[in-house]
Formats: sequence, C-alpha cells, structure tokens
Amino acid sequence: MSLDGYVALPDDTPGPLFDWYDAGEVEVRTARDDLTFHLTPESAAHWAAWTGSLGAIVVGRRLFDLTDGWQGRHPLGVPVVVVTHRPPQGWAHAGPSTEFRDDVVAGLARAQELAGAAVVGVAAGTIASQCLDLGLLDEVAVDLVPVVLGAGRPYFTGIAHGPALLGEPTTTVHGDRVTHLVFPVRR
Amino acid sequence: MSLDGYVALPDDTPGPLFDWYDAGEVEVRTARDDLTFHLTPESAAHWAAWTGSLGAIVVGRRLFDLTDGWQGRHPLGVPVVVVTHRPPQGWAHAGPSTEFRDDVVAGLARAQELAGAAVVGVAAGTIASQCLDLGLLDEVAVDLVPVVLGAGRPYFTGIAHGPALLGEPTTTVHGDRVTHLVFPVRR
Repeated sequence: MSLDGYVALPDDTPGPLFDWYDAGEVEVRTARDDLTFHLTPESAAHWAAWTGSLGAIVVGRRLFDLTDGWQGRHPLGVPVVVVTHRPPQGWAHAGPSTEFRDDVVAGLARAQELAGAAVVGVAAGTIASQCLDLGLLDEVAVDLVPVVLGAGRPYFTGIAHGPALLGEPTTTVHGDRVTHLVFPVRR
Repeated sequence: MSLDGYVALPDDTPGPLFDWYDAGEVEVRTARDDLTFHLTPESAAHWAAWTGSLGAIVVGRRLFDLTDGWQGRHPLGVPVVVVTHRPPQGWAHAGPSTEFRDDVVAGLARAQELAGAAVVGVAAGTIASQCLDLGLLDEVAVDLVPVVLGAGRPYFTGIAHGPALLGEPTTTVHGDRVTHLVFPVRR
C-alpha cells in the first residue's frame, strides 16, 4: 500500500508498489517456478514467517480475475477460496486447490476448515475491508511503500461501520522500499 | 493520519486520530496555556526533537480558519505564514507572529527567512501535498494512527505530478495510539 492508501494506480498497474519484491539479495522461491522474489534479509524473514503461518487464502472475484486464479496454483502453495456470486463455468484451471463460495462468511468458514489450525489470509482490499467491517479479522497486515501515488485503487474501501479500531503494530519490519506492519484488530 | 489516509472524519472532526495526544504520562507543555499534551516517553522525545527543529510554519487558509489562526499564537511558539489569496481584513488577532502570502512559493520563502537555519513545517494536507507535488519538501512526516476511518478528509490530495517517491523512513517511533514516521523525499 502506498502512503496515501492505494494498492494500484488508476489503471490497475502497481507502479512502484512492488519494487520491494526485487530489492534485496535473498532469493525467496514460491510455489510457482515463474515467480521468485529477491528481498532484503529482514523482508525475507518477515515473508517466511508470515507466509509460513498461512493455511488457506480467501480472495475476491476481482483478484481471481486479475490473476486468472493463479492458474489454479497460488504462489504460496495453499488452497484458495474465491468469494463470488457467479463461479466461472468451465474454468480451464479448475481443480481441488480452488473452491468457490457465494458469500464471505461461508468462504471464510471453508478456508478455516482447509487451514485447520493455521491462519487464513484474506485479499485483496475489497474483501479484506468487508471482513474488517464485519468484525471477522484478527489482524490487518500492510506492506507500506514509501510513495505517494496521488490517485488509484484504495486498499480500504466500503467500511460502513467504521471507524475500525486497531491496536499498536505488533510487527514493524523495515525492508527496502517497504515497511511491513501488522496491526491487531480491537474488539 | 488514519491507516487509510484520512486526517479527519467527513464532518471535519478528528474522531480517534488525536487520542495519542493524551495517551501517556509525560506532560508536554506548549506555547499555549490551554493546550498540554500527555504523551508516552517515546512520543514525547520524538515530539520534542521534531518541534524543537522548527523555526516557522506555513499553513493553508483552511487550517487557519479552522483554528482561527490559533488566535495569533501557535502552540509551537513559532511564527506562522498563511498562504491565501484573500487575507482576512480586520482579523482580531493580527500581529507580528502571523503573516499572509498569496502563493505557496512566496509563503515558503518568507517562512524560511523567519526560520533562519531552522526547519520550516508545512500543514495541513492540502498545502503539504501541493508542496510535495512541486518538489518543495525535504521530508514527509506522518503520525500514523492505528484506525481505519473508512471515509474522511485525505492527508494527501491533489498530487498532479505523482507518483512522489519517498525514501525509507528515517524515523519510526511507536507511541500509544500512534506510530511516528518520517520519510525523506527522493529527488
């Protein structure tokens, strides 16, 4: 997220927001051969801890469409539950690692079943904001990039029951072109 | 600033954004008897260093109107240059500590004259964003509050020449209900 709260430029490109993916000397492999990060040691350690905690991911339809559902294989190597009222028909990459649910509560419940005792991640902003608004999140993680975009697609959107109070950050890790922050949600 | 980039609620009230002003045990007096903060030791040390570096402040007309120009006496005890095309006529608190200029470049120049070797601060968001957009800032300071407001008045606005690249934060100080961040501007 940019300092002014955007996760993409108005044309949906990331601009400089992903520069930190390739700003360090530590090679970080993913479940996909076509995607390898190069992070600073601090970012790499944070990334390993964060992604290692995840057991499943819930995503919105928009991110699913933008990524073509990662062709059925998410970079983090965990199952994906897509929240959508219109599951794709005859999707070329349909398989056991991608499921569809028609509302966010059902999507989260299914993801938690798949994750077991591990953490369920929620992305991107629209569905994460919806979950925050409904009181369904334990933490909000932000990779804060030192840039002011001026316009774009906001991370947080559609918060109807705000303000949503968070606690002091439990994680503050400085990488290169990013500060990783994790905030607990206050109930 | 809230995590989603706002400095006030839609009705211009701060909501929980100023909770950190009274979240600690260290009494921090200002140039005004009617305004005393109570900060954590970490926030108080940051506040002392930051405010101690300032020699003058440039503000926009909106902040001037909202505060009635601090009745001619800014809490930080420094002179104020107000950028406005319509200086107030017969303002009750007119005096040597408040000057008016009709554009931001002239306002900054006058403030730097007044500040000498000290730092010139710029507030609030609209004029600070204008200065950032024009390449006139050395640093961007953000007091980041762990709350998602969902709507309100954005800190950064009217960035026409963005993205504006900043450097890694040179200051990261955790208070209570706030994280103080200072980013250098990249040229």
